[in-house]
Amino acid sequence: MRYMIHLSYDGSRYSGWQRQGNSDKTIAGKLESILNRLDEGIVTVHGAGRTDAGVHALDQTATFDLAKPIDPADVMAVLNEHLPEDIAVISCQTSDSRFHARLNAVGKIYRYTVRTDPVKDVFQRRYQWYLGRPLELAAMKQAAAMLTGTHDFTSFATSTSSKHSAVRTVRRIDILERDGTVTLEYEGNGFLYNMVRIMTGTLCEIGLGQRSAGEIPGIISARDRARAGMTAPAQGLTLVSVLYPEGSTDRK
Amino acid sequence: MRYMIHLSYDGSRYSGWQRQGNSDKTIAGKLESILNRLDEGIVTVHGAGRTDAGVHALDQTATFDLAKPIDPADVMAVLNEHLPEDIAVISCQTSDSRFHARLNAVGKIYRYTVRTDPVKDVFQRRYQWYLGRPLELAAMKQAAAMLTGTHDFTSFATSTSSKHSAVRTVRRIDILERDGTVTLEYEGNGFLYNMVRIMTGTLCEIGLGQRSAGEIPGIISARDRARAGMTAPAQGLTLVSVLYPEGSTDRK
Repeated sequence: MRYMIHLSYDGSRYSGWQRQGNSDKTIAGKLESILNRLDEGIVTVHGAGRTDAGVHALDQTATFDLAKPIDPADVMAVLNEHLPEDIAVISCQTSDSRFHARLNAVGKIYRYTVRTDPVKDVFQRRYQWYLGRPLELAAMKQAAAMLTGTHDFTSFATSTSSKHSAVRTVRRIDILERDGTVTLEYEGNGFLYNMVRIMTGTLCEIGLGQRSAGEIPGIISARDRARAGMTAPAQGLTLVSVLYPEGSTDRK
Repeated sequence: MRYMIHLSYDGSRYSGWQRQGNSDKTIAGKLESILNRLDEGIVTVHGAGRTDAGVHALDQTATFDLAKPIDPADVMAVLNEHLPEDIAVISCQTSDSRFHARLNAVGKIYRYTVRTDPVKDVFQRRYQWYLGRPLELAAMKQAAAMLTGTHDFTSFATSTSSKHSAVRTVRRIDILERDGTVTLEYEGNGFLYNMVRIMTGTLCEIGLGQRSAGEIPGIISARDRARAGMTAPAQGLTLVSVLYPEGSTDRK
């Protein structure tokens, strides 16, 4: 039986979503170790977004199969009972056996939060990049408009492979200022490794006046990581939600 | 020269505001150890609210004297440079030498946050009491109205001394439900030891149907701690702000 869960987590203590070697300090690893005790087989959890070390999720989705059918409400209760306090399952349902959290996703929304106020926000410190300086939003928005659309994003990715396409569509980048923070919200059909963090680093360098917005087309066409800006720290990044075609997550 | 600071902190890692013995794990202790290096003498920091272990502050105020006069902006910069990431000074000014953060305060606002949604909020987990069950707000508001006003709050305090009055005025208790949480905001001229947490515990027991609102007058008049409800956990409590008479914090 296939199950789909929605979950949120504070990624601060983890080395990312995916199990690597024997490390249990991954979100998927925490889920799998509980599900393996619940089921007869070895359970593999497929997450929609393979979030990096230190990256958070407000609403991540994941699918997995259990050999022994169990009521979804019970699966959710067992997971929430045994998960550490920084991971929470929001919902659990059975799904069509062909539905896959990552392969069926048609989009993702990520949010990056930058603290621009000189005074730290002690309560949000784990979920923000503390910059402590003002950002020029008009220039950032101008640059964001040039990043939006369908491009080869090689310049905005760490270690791309030439075997796979680096073409992605960024549908929107919304930049908002509020209460001493600037948030950048990205929606796209998919993102390359570190792409949101490199776009954010580049946009913040523009906002600080260290680069101009007009450099963006040249950076894109160069297809060279060295041309873009810094990789913004992981802790400011949150996977907000994963998008699926209407009705696709229902059990058929 | 007397200085007044506003500061915020995440109290999770601390044994409270005030220095106890040789423990450096207090908010005042962290401030004093930096100020002692800055000044020639031994600096004592007086906080308006002596928050307990695990209690947070959004806007606490404190006063202290420096023998050597230093620009307030520099005092703030030095403090923020050396304070740990869970304590932040929001502002610093010089004040009248008779002004004392605690003795001149005419009121305090505290907020208590209860998570009622069965799903934990992983990002707010350190600043909420996770109850995971719904609360009946109408009954709580009825009880809160009976707690409001001037009463002897002995029943709502841990270890009161018969030498000091336990009479306090609670000006308002606002109870709000939003996004799976219930917040209780208390404004009063002062609060006894654990008073906000015991009022919250009692109001939540009423909200859970374990007690009725009608018990409040009897609990107050009994002047017996055993009659009130449980002490709600420290982590849900935040000192929101400290109130002073108009103009009193200005330097004369």
